[in-house]
Parts: sequence; C-alpha cells; structure tokens
Amino acid sequence: MANPTAAILVIGDEILSGRTRDTNMYHLAQELTKAGIDLAEARMVGDDTAMIQDAVRALAQGYDHVFTSGGIGPTHDDITADAIAAAFGVGIDVREDARDLLKAHYEATGFDLNPARLRMARIPEGAELIENPVSAAPGFSIRNVHVLAGVPAIFEAMVASVLPRLTGGTPLLSQNLRVQRGEGDIAGMLADIARDFEDLSIGCYPYQQDGAYCSNVVVRGADGARLQAAIARLGRELGL
Amino acid sequence: MANPTAAILVIGDEILSGRTRDTNMYHLAQELTKAGIDLAEARMVGDDTAMIQDAVRALAQGYDHVFTSGGIGPTHDDITADAIAAAFGVGIDVREDARDLLKAHYEATGFDLNPARLRMARIPEGAELIENPVSAAPGFSIRNVHVLAGVPAIFEAMVASVLPRLTGGTPLLSQNLRVQRGEGDIAGMLADIARDFEDLSIGCYPYQQDGAYCSNVVVRGADGARLQAAIARLGRELGL
Repeated sequence: MANPTAAILVIGDEILSGRTRDTNMYHLAQELTKAGIDLAEARMVGDDTAMIQDAVRALAQGYDHVFTSGGIGPTHDDITADAIAAAFGVGIDVREDARDLLKAHYEATGFDLNPARLRMARIPEGAELIENPVSAAPGFSIRNVHVLAGVPAIFEAMVASVLPRLTGGTPLLSQNLRVQRGEGDIAGMLADIARDFEDLSIGCYPYQQDGAYCSNVVVRGADGARLQAAIARLGRELGL
Repeated sequence: MANPTAAILVIGDEILSGRTRDTNMYHLAQELTKAGIDLAEARMVGDDTAMIQDAVRALAQGYDHVFTSGGIGPTHDDITADAIAAAFGVGIDVREDARDLLKAHYEATGFDLNPARLRMARIPEGAELIENPVSAAPGFSIRNVHVLAGVPAIFEAMVASVLPRLTGGTPLLSQNLRVQRGEGDIAGMLADIARDFEDLSIGCYPYQQDGAYCSNVVVRGADGARLQAAIARLGRELGL
C-alpha cells in the first residue's frame, strides 16, 4: 500500500521578503520521512486571506494531510485561523477550552489575557485542539488540515503532538555513496540502474572536493534489501 | 504603479525528503526585494514531470515572473527542461549555441562531452540562454519563466545574470524596532497603527531574551517617509 501523502503551507510575509529563513518546512520534511508519510509539496504564501484560502483548499483536496505554519498569534497580521474557517465555510469564535488554556497560562506567568491574546482562542467549528507545551496558545486540526504556530520551537512541539495521531506508512530509507567522479561521468550508468530499480528513487548531487568534481549518489526507498542491492551494484560498476 | 510580482518553484526530491535544506528560495527572496519585485509565492515539488508542469503553468499565469531551481543537470532525474517544454507545448532538442558552451568548457577542463552531459544542451524552442559562469551548462528563460540550476553557487550566479534583464519596481524598504514587551501586550496598538498606515506592512515577531518575552516589530513599504512616520509613532506610543 502506498504511503500517506502530505503538504505544508508556510504562511508569512517575513518568509517571502527574505527577512526570515524558514526552518519549519525542513523540520517537518525530516519528521514525516521518519513517520512514513510522503511530503509531496510545499507552498509559501504571505499574510493574505485569499491566498491562504486558495492554497489550503487546493492542498487539502490533493493530499492526505496538510500542515500549516504561522499566522496564529495575537497580532493583526495573524489571520490564518479565520482564513481556514472561511476556506471550509465554517464559523469561528473564541472557544471555552482554548480560553481556559490561555487563562491558566497567563495567570501563571503574570500577564493579562487581553483582547489581543484572546484572539488566540478563536478556533474554527469542529476543530480539535493541538497542544502547545511552550506558550499554551493551541494549534488545531480541522478535517485533514493541521494548523501550527510559526515560531520554530512551538511548531516543532506541535508536530510532536500531532504526528502520533496520524497513521504513518513505511518509513523511507536512504543510503548514499560518495563518488570521486563528476555526475556527468556516471549519469549513463545511474540511468541504467534507475531503470532496473524502478521501486527506488536514485538521486545524484554534485559537490566539489579539493577542486575535483564529485557526486553524492542517494538511493531512497522503503525496502532495505532492494536498497542494499542497488548500492552493491553501484559499487561494483564503479569498481569501489 | 504596483511592483512586478514573482514566484519561485524549487524542484527536487531531496528538498521534500528533508535531506537537503533549500537555500535558493531564501537567496532569491532577498535579491527580489532589493530589485523591487514582490515574491508572492513559493512552491516546492519533487522530480515529477506532471507536478512540475502543473506548477509552472499555474505560476506563469499568476505572476509576472517565475523562477525555477533544480533539475537541469546531466542525470536521469533531471527532467525540468523537458517538463517545461511540455508545459508550454513547445519542442525541445540539443541547441548548437548551448552545445558550443559545453564543448568549450569540457575541452578546457579535460572532460568528455558524453551523451549525459549533452542533455544539458537540450533547450526548449524559443528560449533565451542564461549564462552559467560556474560550470557552463546554461539555464534558460522561456516566456516569463526563468529556469535555473539547483546547486546554490550556480543558482546565485544565474540570478545575477537574469535580474538585470527584468524591469524592477520600487525596492521594498524595511525598518524594525525591538521592544521588550510580549506581542500580546502591544498587539492592540499595532493594529491601530496598521489601520492608519494601510500602505505599509507591519509585522510582529516574538522572541525571548533572558527569559523575557520580547517583540521585533518590522515595518515594510516603498515610501521611506511613511516608514519613518510609522516607526516614530510606534516609539512614541511605546514611550521609547
């Protein structure tokens, strides 16, 4: 059976302006690979309701799971929760259990649960909360969309809360072989091996070492024995 | 007049599996911001012809410029040029001027221009070559799509070749103010300022310092005087 598929939507003007370098997509890619869920697409859009809605609808239809990152904080540019409620045509309002989480957190830390902070308890109808062990304000899952915070420490904690709920597949394994030849030199042989191992994905990534062209050949797949067979053949044909 | 818009499509299984962390989107975002071109969307897909085609068609229709990264090397998984020719319904074949560039480069470096390397001279009909000062194999522009290599040093050199050809807009300016208060504390005030400065984008990004919640307020816009006015008002209202 094929692995479940996933997409991520990274939301925030600061990503597209180049002010902030996204780390959440990279983290999620690694966690999903371990869980046997294939990350098939990533998109990044700004703080724009229409763009968030369109992307969420398209990705929710195309993949088993969608993760979003960013836009669920207390400020005016945090519009993700409202955009997602609109995308699915459901209502959104402050929810008691989310408000209770915030109230307890701000009482314990000595801050005021003011109207801006209370916005973080606005949850679309029918959603399930995602725990935020860092700063209390929850994420939520609605249908197949998991809405997570953008701050990397919180995003990562929320991924850890959500992933155990999802049915994974066969973890993708990978092996690599570093070869002291340029990729143009070994491309013909790699193409032959790729044809004989259609169940594997064989990638070739060039790098330079001491001025010489080298290649990192990466073989990926779910079946460890096939992976070993492909790597062994590669070694033989390269005379390693 | 509004600035031109752009999107980037990052192509490669190694990005979505989490093996490689993309740097090209981040680099392009910064260069476009300086050039006054608004990066409005980024997408990342694997080495899959149908997904590349669909994404290129959608982005080419939606934005003034599209940049792609990856998949134009000599190996079997380098399918970007063919996917883009198919997306636009044009032919693709080895082109003499591209072959000459490769021939000169490989003669000078003592390598063989074998069939795998010659694939890098396959250029869609009607495209214009983009110079590759690092390893000769050219990128190309077809209609509003600029097809660049995935290796960061080459991607960056190609961006430097292409950008001067494009008509930019007003560079986006930004100023920031670090505030030793949590974003929930200043969110109400920021929303008021954002309403009074609708021509600017005002973002707020939380961070912690010595255990205290702090906020980095970033104001972005094309008009330096308006930017100053917003920052000054922010300073006044914060008593800084």
